[in-house]
Amino acid sequence: MTLNQHMRAASSDGGAARVPEFDAVVARFTEVVGPEWVLLDEGRVSEFRDPFEGPDATEHQPRFVVQPGTVEEVQAVVRIANELGVPLWTSSMGRNFGYGGSAPVVNGSVVLSLRRLNRVLEVDEAAGYVLFEPGVTFFDLYEELRRRDIKLAISVPDLGWGSVMGNALQHGFGYHQHGIHADAVCGLEVVLADGDLLRTGHGANPRSTLWQAHKRGFGPTIDNLFMQSNFGVVTKMGLWLAPRPEVITTGAIICEGDDDIVPLVEMLRPLVRNGTVQGLPLLAGTRYVPDDATGVAADLGRRLRKAARPGRWNARISMYGDARIVAAQQAVIEERVAEIPGAKLTLNTYPGDIGPDEIEVRDRVPAGIPSMLLLNVMKEHFYGDNLGHIDFSPIIPFEGQAAAKHERMVTSVLDEFELTGFFSWIVNSRTMVGACMVLFDRTSAEEVARAHAAVRKMCDLAAEWGWTEYRAHIALGDEIAKNFDFNDFALSRTYTKIKDALDPNGILSPGSHGIWPSPMRD
Amino acid sequence: MTLNQHMRAASSDGGAARVPEFDAVVARFTEVVGPEWVLLDEGRVSEFRDPFEGPDATEHQPRFVVQPGTVEEVQAVVRIANELGVPLWTSSMGRNFGYGGSAPVVNGSVVLSLRRLNRVLEVDEAAGYVLFEPGVTFFDLYEELRRRDIKLAISVPDLGWGSVMGNALQHGFGYHQHGIHADAVCGLEVVLADGDLLRTGHGANPRSTLWQAHKRGFGPTIDNLFMQSNFGVVTKMGLWLAPRPEVITTGAIICEGDDDIVPLVEMLRPLVRNGTVQGLPLLAGTRYVPDDATGVAADLGRRLRKAARPGRWNARISMYGDARIVAAQQAVIEERVAEIPGAKLTLNTYPGDIGPDEIEVRDRVPAGIPSMLLLNVMKEHFYGDNLGHIDFSPIIPFEGQAAAKHERMVTSVLDEFELTGFFSWIVNSRTMVGACMVLFDRTSAEEVARAHAAVRKMCDLAAEWGWTEYRAHIALGDEIAKNFDFNDFALSRTYTKIKDALDPNGILSPGSHGIWPSPMRD
Repeated sequence: MTLNQHMRAASSDGGAARVPEFDAVVARFTEVVGPEWVLLDEGRVSEFRDPFEGPDATEHQPRFVVQPGTVEEVQAVVRIANELGVPLWTSSMGRNFGYGGSAPVVNGSVVLSLRRLNRVLEVDEAAGYVLFEPGVTFFDLYEELRRRDIKLAISVPDLGWGSVMGNALQHGFGYHQHGIHADAVCGLEVVLADGDLLRTGHGANPRSTLWQAHKRGFGPTIDNLFMQSNFGVVTKMGLWLAPRPEVITTGAIICEGDDDIVPLVEMLRPLVRNGTVQGLPLLAGTRYVPDDATGVAADLGRRLRKAARPGRWNARISMYGDARIVAAQQAVIEERVAEIPGAKLTLNTYPGDIGPDEIEVRDRVPAGIPSMLLLNVMKEHFYGDNLGHIDFSPIIPFEGQAAAKHERMVTSVLDEFELTGFFSWIVNSRTMVGACMVLFDRTSAEEVARAHAAVRKMCDLAAEWGWTEYRAHIALGDEIAKNFDFNDFALSRTYTKIKDALDPNGILSPGSHGIWPSPMRD
Repeated sequence: MTLNQHMRAASSDGGAARVPEFDAVVARFTEVVGPEWVLLDEGRVSEFRDPFEGPDATEHQPRFVVQPGTVEEVQAVVRIANELGVPLWTSSMGRNFGYGGSAPVVNGSVVLSLRRLNRVLEVDEAAGYVLFEPGVTFFDLYEELRRRDIKLAISVPDLGWGSVMGNALQHGFGYHQHGIHADAVCGLEVVLADGDLLRTGHGANPRSTLWQAHKRGFGPTIDNLFMQSNFGVVTKMGLWLAPRPEVITTGAIICEGDDDIVPLVEMLRPLVRNGTVQGLPLLAGTRYVPDDATGVAADLGRRLRKAARPGRWNARISMYGDARIVAAQQAVIEERVAEIPGAKLTLNTYPGDIGPDEIEVRDRVPAGIPSMLLLNVMKEHFYGDNLGHIDFSPIIPFEGQAAAKHERMVTSVLDEFELTGFFSWIVNSRTMVGACMVLFDRTSAEEVARAHAAVRKMCDLAAEWGWTEYRAHIALGDEIAKNFDFNDFALSRTYTKIKDALDPNGILSPGSHGIWPSPMRD
């Protein structure tokens, strides 16, 4: 599809209808950023679409892409959009492929891509934080710390190519200490919808050195207001990093029985909650397929089994710190694991400064070393470069029975839709966050539609149990937001009041997470 | 002073001038809560004044007090105030005596006291949280857990009589795990200025069981928006509690040299940051007074020395958990302490379920057992029941030199004003929060004014170094807010936009933390 076709498709949409004369908008943005950074050619725009949208997509299409190179240029672009009523869709790197990449909710929005803002601005080793821009990836940040031999550790998600900031703003997770990335955020710089520049917390005091060191200034802390929202464009972020530990011990508890998920989860909970296990455990489940099983589900299951981690259940756990303390933690864990019949514990211990080439590949991510392993394994076993995935990521209680129920539902929906997917939970202190990547061939419109339908069904079933997704594909935002209906959607109505106050023309990422400005609310 | 005198004093004030006809307001509130809970008599109103305001106070006077008994009554009271334009001042228990108690910023405000909402609504031992109302004190919560033998630990501040919720909403601290109380908050119920009822996070999904279990719903998390602000009246709060540990080890590192503060702080920092020391250490400094020293400062210093904890510097540290892991942590700490010449380490280890009567009194607070020790010690040595204090609580870098500079400034201002005070820091991961209680005789108007002037001077000097208070007496809010002037007060202007959106008539706690509705901004 050419850009013109996309634009024609977009022109039938209510959102796009608000976009003023195309040439005038392009001209104004070009004045600010120069012609090189207003991307109009399909060749340059394509990577800002939903990468797995399928060949027949007409919704969620960017009209074009603007890439400012400085905060001042971001301010100028936002001011023009506000003046002309152009809907922008903010994107950092746009690597959140399971959730739509850089694609906007409102068809015909202009993607405001922040990739060119890619500097690590400050690293404070003694205080343990970093200040950086939206275009910095996990690989970038890791390399910067490594190059300067800074004794801090970062928490990385499964794929290292994404924006550190974008991940945190989307409530993303990693597995090291500070693995709940949104919790590690300390201080933001934000361009507001009128182009005004805001700094939060102690950043609002130009004489303070504590912008990235203390989360609360005087008055309310509003960092969280700019996460999973459309209230501003974040241009700088402070993030807390853990000290590089003396040792890293990481490995897995492996169980083989279908029902072992229940005692495994129950055993993990107190260890996570009292900090004996550190970082965020990753708990994965993969069925064994009987040799005599036939049919699509069995075939997909056998391929998945080859790609997956060992065991029917695999709980990856890690510890970080002084060797003596970690040894004591390990002794406690060994005792607990021994209480589950048949459960096996395997752990590797590395020096805290271990590099990517000295560590077992599968231990990189829990050691805070960015990797692309997960994507490579998936491509190797499923669809090669045509691999697509859409993610189903509900937050569920940290309870064995809830996990068992969750897995049964997901596998039955996958079987029903003749699909497969990687299935795991990212373990928080009081909840587990499902991470199910439903796989498909992105060149098949039918298969893309089937995968979307399967995830939609999973969301519907989860909603009946009161479970909602921590993060979702842009096409699902409104539906998920509909679950939050206490007192006639009081929370959603509050979001809209804040949206209207901070962005009265509704130009910033309208529809993100079901948040709409008043005139666009249904 | 009688209530009538207070009201006459208030009537010369711009804020009070906005209050409509007194009798009509009283009548409307009485219809909702009944005559018993509209407090008009000076005898019942007095405890909602600044307890240490001095005998001649005319500012920050409550007009009267209304005490609803249910959330529905809170909603009705707020609706009436919104209709009539009555400024309310929300107070939970009002025990924040060093910061003004329940006294309002705007003279003649009606105190909305939430003490009657005093239920612990839910305790989930397995998931590790509690849901409770504003009138629950630390003593109440502790007794409830103890009575039901629930194996969870609470974090308590120095004085246990205050509201758990009020403390968290004011960014208060305790010393156990989850000692940064605002960080432990998970889910709020809030009455908005129009009487509407909001539940945040998963509380907005009536079918969810995760309101207190997962901090982020779908879209931005706004719990922090209702802390140190005036955007709503919080009526329910979820709070995370740590598991009751197998053992509690607590004690102090004691140094005797004036300059030992620098190596002590530098030694503590990595131990705090990697979790070897747990909870929040309390670092206190008390000068020795030469035997031949004379004058007011020396006399006050000698009395303070008798009341204070041992040593020139005293760093209280704690560990909580499995006995083997705590022993390993202790071994690491012993090695570090040995590197500071003359430093002494004393630690006590208790079973995790130790009760208040079996533990050394000074170890209660770090063990999560509420206490009134600090106030009793202060009263014993200074002014008895006439003891007053106003607190100076700046956030400073977690650096030895910063601590030394801070203590020199505070002691020199105290000497200059011929005052004394308890001096300590609550140690966070990347900052230290000064807690200096400036003491005075509250029956002396001159001494009260002198203490206020001293704290004002400390704030001014701290501001020159870029340091601001984490919390302050109501009389100081506007001055402290003036430090946050980046980009022509962009943060403050944003607060006002949100204030106007959520409370267009500006009836909720106007002036709290320097946040004013548009019509009242200067």
